[in-house]
Amino acid sequence: MSANTLGELFRVTNFGESHGPAIGCVIDGCPPGLMLSADDIQHDLDRRRPGTSSVVTQRSEADRVEILSGLYEGLTTGAPIALLIRNTDQRSKDYGNLLDTFRPGHADYSYFRKYGVRDPRGGGRSSARLTAPTVAAGAVARKWLLEHAGVRITGWMSQMGARVIPFEGFEHIANNPFFAANASLIAQLEEDIRALKGDSVGARIEVLATGVPPGWGEPIYDRLDADIAHAMMGLNAVKGVEIGDGFASVAQKGSEHGDEMTPEGFVSNHAGGVLGGVSSGQDIRVSLAIKPTSSISLERRSVTRDGEPTTVVTKGRHDPCVGIRATPIAEALLAIVLMDHALRHRAQCGDVRHTVMPVPARRPG
Amino acid sequence: MSANTLGELFRVTNFGESHGPAIGCVIDGCPPGLMLSADDIQHDLDRRRPGTSSVVTQRSEADRVEILSGLYEGLTTGAPIALLIRNTDQRSKDYGNLLDTFRPGHADYSYFRKYGVRDPRGGGRSSARLTAPTVAAGAVARKWLLEHAGVRITGWMSQMGARVIPFEGFEHIANNPFFAANASLIAQLEEDIRALKGDSVGARIEVLATGVPPGWGEPIYDRLDADIAHAMMGLNAVKGVEIGDGFASVAQKGSEHGDEMTPEGFVSNHAGGVLGGVSSGQDIRVSLAIKPTSSISLERRSVTRDGEPTTVVTKGRHDPCVGIRATPIAEALLAIVLMDHALRHRAQCGDVRHTVMPVPARRPG
Amino acid sequence: MSANTLGELFRVTNFGESHGPAIGCVIDGCPPGLMLSADDIQHDLDRRRPGTSSVVTQRSEADRVEILSGLYEGLTTGAPIALLIRNTDQRSKDYGNLLDTFRPGHADYSYFRKYGVRDPRGGGRSSARLTAPTVAAGAVARKWLLEHAGVRITGWMSQMGARVIPFEGFEHIANNPFFAANASLIAQLEEDIRALKGDSVGARIEVLATGVPPGWGEPIYDRLDADIAHAMMGLNAVKGVEIGDGFASVAQKGSEHGDEMTPEGFVSNHAGGVLGGVSSGQDIRVSLAIKPTSSISLERRSVTRDGEPTTVVTKGRHDPCVGIRATPIAEALLAIVLMDHALRHRAQCGDVRHTVMPVPARRPG
Amino acid sequence: MSANTLGELFRVTNFGESHGPAIGCVIDGCPPGLMLSADDIQHDLDRRRPGTSSVVTQRSEADRVEILSGLYEGLTTGAPIALLIRNTDQRSKDYGNLLDTFRPGHADYSYFRKYGVRDPRGGGRSSARLTAPTVAAGAVARKWLLEHAGVRITGWMSQMGARVIPFEGFEHIANNPFFAANASLIAQLEEDIRALKGDSVGARIEVLATGVPPGWGEPIYDRLDADIAHAMMGLNAVKGVEIGDGFASVAQKGSEHGDEMTPEGFVSNHAGGVLGGVSSGQDIRVSLAIKPTSSISLERRSVTRDGEPTTVVTKGRHDPCVGIRATPIAEALLAIVLMDHALRHRAQCGDVRHTVMPVPARRPG
Repeated sequence: MSANTLGELFRVTNFGESHGPAIGCVIDGCPPGLMLSADDIQHDLDRRRPGTSSVVTQRSEADRVEILSGLYEGLTTGAPIALLIRNTDQRSKDYGNLLDTFRPGHADYSYFRKYGVRDPRGGGRSSARLTAPTVAAGAVARKWLLEHAGVRITGWMSQMGARVIPFEGFEHIANNPFFAANASLIAQLEEDIRALKGDSVGARIEVLATGVPPGWGEPIYDRLDADIAHAMMGLNAVKGVEIGDGFASVAQKGSEHGDEMTPEGFVSNHAGGVLGGVSSGQDIRVSLAIKPTSSISLERRSVTRDGEPTTVVTKGRHDPCVGIRATPIAEALLAIVLMDHALRHRAQCGDVRHTVMPVPARRPG
Repeated sequence: MSANTLGELFRVTNFGESHGPAIGCVIDGCPPGLMLSADDIQHDLDRRRPGTSSVVTQRSEADRVEILSGLYEGLTTGAPIALLIRNTDQRSKDYGNLLDTFRPGHADYSYFRKYGVRDPRGGGRSSARLTAPTVAAGAVARKWLLEHAGVRITGWMSQMGARVIPFEGFEHIANNPFFAANASLIAQLEEDIRALKGDSVGARIEVLATGVPPGWGEPIYDRLDADIAHAMMGLNAVKGVEIGDGFASVAQKGSEHGDEMTPEGFVSNHAGGVLGGVSSGQDIRVSLAIKPTSSISLERRSVTRDGEPTTVVTKGRHDPCVGIRATPIAEALLAIVLMDHALRHRAQCGDVRHTVMPVPARRPG
Repeated sequence: MSANTLGELFRVTNFGESHGPAIGCVIDGCPPGLMLSADDIQHDLDRRRPGTSSVVTQRSEADRVEILSGLYEGLTTGAPIALLIRNTDQRSKDYGNLLDTFRPGHADYSYFRKYGVRDPRGGGRSSARLTAPTVAAGAVARKWLLEHAGVRITGWMSQMGARVIPFEGFEHIANNPFFAANASLIAQLEEDIRALKGDSVGARIEVLATGVPPGWGEPIYDRLDADIAHAMMGLNAVKGVEIGDGFASVAQKGSEHGDEMTPEGFVSNHAGGVLGGVSSGQDIRVSLAIKPTSSISLERRSVTRDGEPTTVVTKGRHDPCVGIRATPIAEALLAIVLMDHALRHRAQCGDVRHTVMPVPARRPG
Repeated sequence: MSANTLGELFRVTNFGESHGPAIGCVIDGCPPGLMLSADDIQHDLDRRRPGTSSVVTQRSEADRVEILSGLYEGLTTGAPIALLIRNTDQRSKDYGNLLDTFRPGHADYSYFRKYGVRDPRGGGRSSARLTAPTVAAGAVARKWLLEHAGVRITGWMSQMGARVIPFEGFEHIANNPFFAANASLIAQLEEDIRALKGDSVGARIEVLATGVPPGWGEPIYDRLDADIAHAMMGLNAVKGVEIGDGFASVAQKGSEHGDEMTPEGFVSNHAGGVLGGVSSGQDIRVSLAIKPTSSISLERRSVTRDGEPTTVVTKGRHDPCVGIRATPIAEALLAIVLMDHALRHRAQCGDVRHTVMPVPARRPG
């Protein structure tokens, strides 16, 4: 698990800085025999890529992934899969003056206090650019999960700033730059972005996994929901994570929240697919709160390294709502966690004979 | 780390079942030289203990802890500290009929599908009783954190069901069975519990850590907030975790959320004490959503092991609101995570010379 | 894994001190559904137990194991298995004067310099008594390995001091207190022990695992032989570990060492059952060098805590050859490592379809 | 940690195949503030590099290392350090026919049985070429150890085949291609290599670390010697590991083996610098047995994937004695283990106040 490695058995070790020569990751523990190509990964990377619409940062990165190892004749061999993405559009001078001051909401101050030294170029290690290798690794997990377990993962934005985005249908998500499951509100969202005028806004993201079999999760500490929360809260700008009904559960009664079962299936899914930290076979439902982008072009009070008062206006190219591009990243994180737990479950319980009838998953209409 | 061990360097390995002979844990990695006695641990255990008021379960457990190892003449030696708590009030017959059916909202079904075998007595391994060893380990972490870093951790209940509990002052928390930071609403809360009549209700818990120095947290995956979310979401019945402003961040603007700094300190604490996954020196603020107790005495639909329809009425002795006793557990979990990160930070950065002026923490009035 | 936990997926966390109230361990990750009782464990514990013959220490410990958790109706449930052994024959006064000086060959000095505090009673944490929980955990691994994979593990002493003990047959091992695979030399070995007159002597131990399927081991760093070496060198008093021909390989030619294969099987087993860090299906062969017991009753030079010269004569009850009781411990360690790798292999490669004919194992006559 | 990661806190994750596009590693956990450049690493890589003399393989690899991340203005930042080495002299056709048969002594068979698929080009993942990233990572550890703790690590070959190489002096090691601490026997060793005529031979390597402070090592399972044994036995072709007197301890008496202490220091170093799994302040002494190269040009019996008998003659370019180039690798492994333990010790015991006088290390004349 630790620091720059995510996962216990499907392990993703991330490296690189926003404005260094390259970023990437090493995936260790992937089962052998998975057919894999750079194209499989590139598709997800392109969804996360900057510069693809007017509502995200204009940094132009090709984000072309090179597979350095772990494949032979198109199949994974069980050896580590190293993925490399060269940075091409560094403009470090945009950030040169930030070595001596701290941008509010950013990791500048806390990193400096921790390490005593830091790479200020574009946020260095704390940049959201480092989510690209996570997405690449997630694409590998995703392919295995689909082919070996029938698991599908879909994310969408359900709120941007104060504006709730009603769910209209999965088919809309790919047709707008907001990852909104909605067709009617897109022009309004674009107008909302324009109205920010240098300020930024938060977002709420939903992620759904279908087809997860019952039994994944390692209580009592590494519950499936606990590891999902770890991965999601570890994503830049995330300030809250919910499973199932989340905070709405506080005001619910037990007679409302507890999902009844019938031979036809679960009657509801308040739990979000996890009971006692173990998947129940129902859809896994996760929600994220993403704070507004910290980099804004409005003047903010700050201090220098020496503790003197100063002000900061963040230039450079930034997302007005980092939540927009968070959707494919959240999907990738969920894929990595599920894949890790698929392997962990197989390790301990690979020979369990199920004596219990499965309760069908049922998505309440 | 994994499954039944929490932490990477301060590692708590939990064992036991609700109605087995004993529960306990082994703490590995505790620094040597800490003065420690069973009394230090007992105090926190007693706060979590069942049967202490009319608003919690009437199971009567002494929860006396025995320290089996790791001490010599009252000091920790650096060797593992094994803590043992004998179960004394098992009434397994209360649960005997539950081996063949699945209580809605409980881990019965998912555990059975995972392991193929399960201990049904009182929830077995999935019982909230297993939080007692966590609390015991948290007491050790807490003592070290206070003595070595001046860190103090306090939790309280801020909402029970639909009723919001206004914060009136820390001094009230110890004076009521709800862990409410409030004196005026206690009779009302007791009435709310009585009105449940066999049903149950959720809760919202706040936990605050003061005195955490800047620099704790291991990005990019094991951020301090990520590990807090992991620990908290791993607590029974938790469905949501927030750091700082949490889900309220979604509707905020960047100019509002990003905490400005002045030489006098941070101007606000929307971040909840963590920037880029690393502590900033401000108070760590965590909120939890706890679902209503799944064990209720109302009849619920379920299925048998063979998939036949049935109904379940949960007897036994249960908390009408598991959130009530969650407060000391959430404190313990935060203590364990902070302690673990104190050691992790010391490992990598123990010789960093800080060239950056600290920004004072400031609790906005 | 780390410090007091052995194994990645089958994890044994050890606790206790030689003269504390109890010793024990928590086994996490054991597959569910294994039939297990205290008797299964007691058998191996009794083989390691002190006081059972004139050639080992006369400390009298019943070493009765209590299973505290992880079982339901005689089957493992997948939950942690906690094992407790109460110490009954502490005579701490034997060691009281050793707090201020350091016994040559012992951990006294290095522990004190590490932790700044130490439990001197009987070596405290560094005592070989702490191998009892390891043996207990090994018994669980052993049972699973036999029932699920047909793996059998056998150890014996092949040399004591300068005296080589010829292998005569497995059937002799249980019939003498030396774990010698030999019937004709026992009286001589007893005489060798008597002749020590307060001094001590080293030993060489062999351990063999048969039935290990090809494919266990996690290169490139956690090779099966690497993890065996880790476990064995971690056993008290071990100073050397060999796999297969070990140090004899140095003087061999490649044409001699490399084991040829025929359709009838491997022609030889110089490799000791591991190729490239992965089991080959041949017998796993491990050899250990065990140093002479450090506790001897001859006067030795030492220093005090303050650096003053002194002399030490170790009293108390000690094994004249710690290697004798090392045999069941080495078997247990091999069992734990193999079990761990069985699960690790299943995690990553549980669905591999073997397209390669197995090469039969063949024990060269 | 696991599989392709070495170390718990100083973690080296290795990737690549012998004939893939690139090999490399990611170092996670390195303390910030270390001055580092590619040149620091290249020096050690060049010592391991093939093709540098007539007594090693003639594969010609520049082994130029590129640092992809983790540095800012020449200092480590605490972020992962990714190191990349492009393969330039792949001749995969040399190995094309080896996909269907198994070379005796190689990992071909065991890998195939494990993963069901394998990269046969030059041994793929099991090639000794993958030790280059280990050496690169070791160079980083080494620099930190020297600058922060004064630790120096030196290795040499003490035996090649049946020929013992007397130790004449450290100054000779760099002056001959055998890493022999000897000036008078070099011509003889070259003659020994020539006399092999397609066969191969084993070797014995010594590694010494001076300046290691007392206190490193994490008993009871992750003793310093246990982790050294793990790392060393995980090196290709190693079949045996000794600490201090190793297997010679078997025939020693306790009165001989236990190192006495005087105010002037330890009187001897039979222990090899480790007592109870914790460094004593004396020199760490490690010995390795390396088997003869498995790739020889003599005809050997083998089987095909289908179990049919065949013969193998290994062509390609190979080391007649892999032990020769093992010396810098063994040094690197010892450096990584010591570095890891330096950080682990600091984590738990970073604030221990030593109340015990240090016993001087003394290298017996």
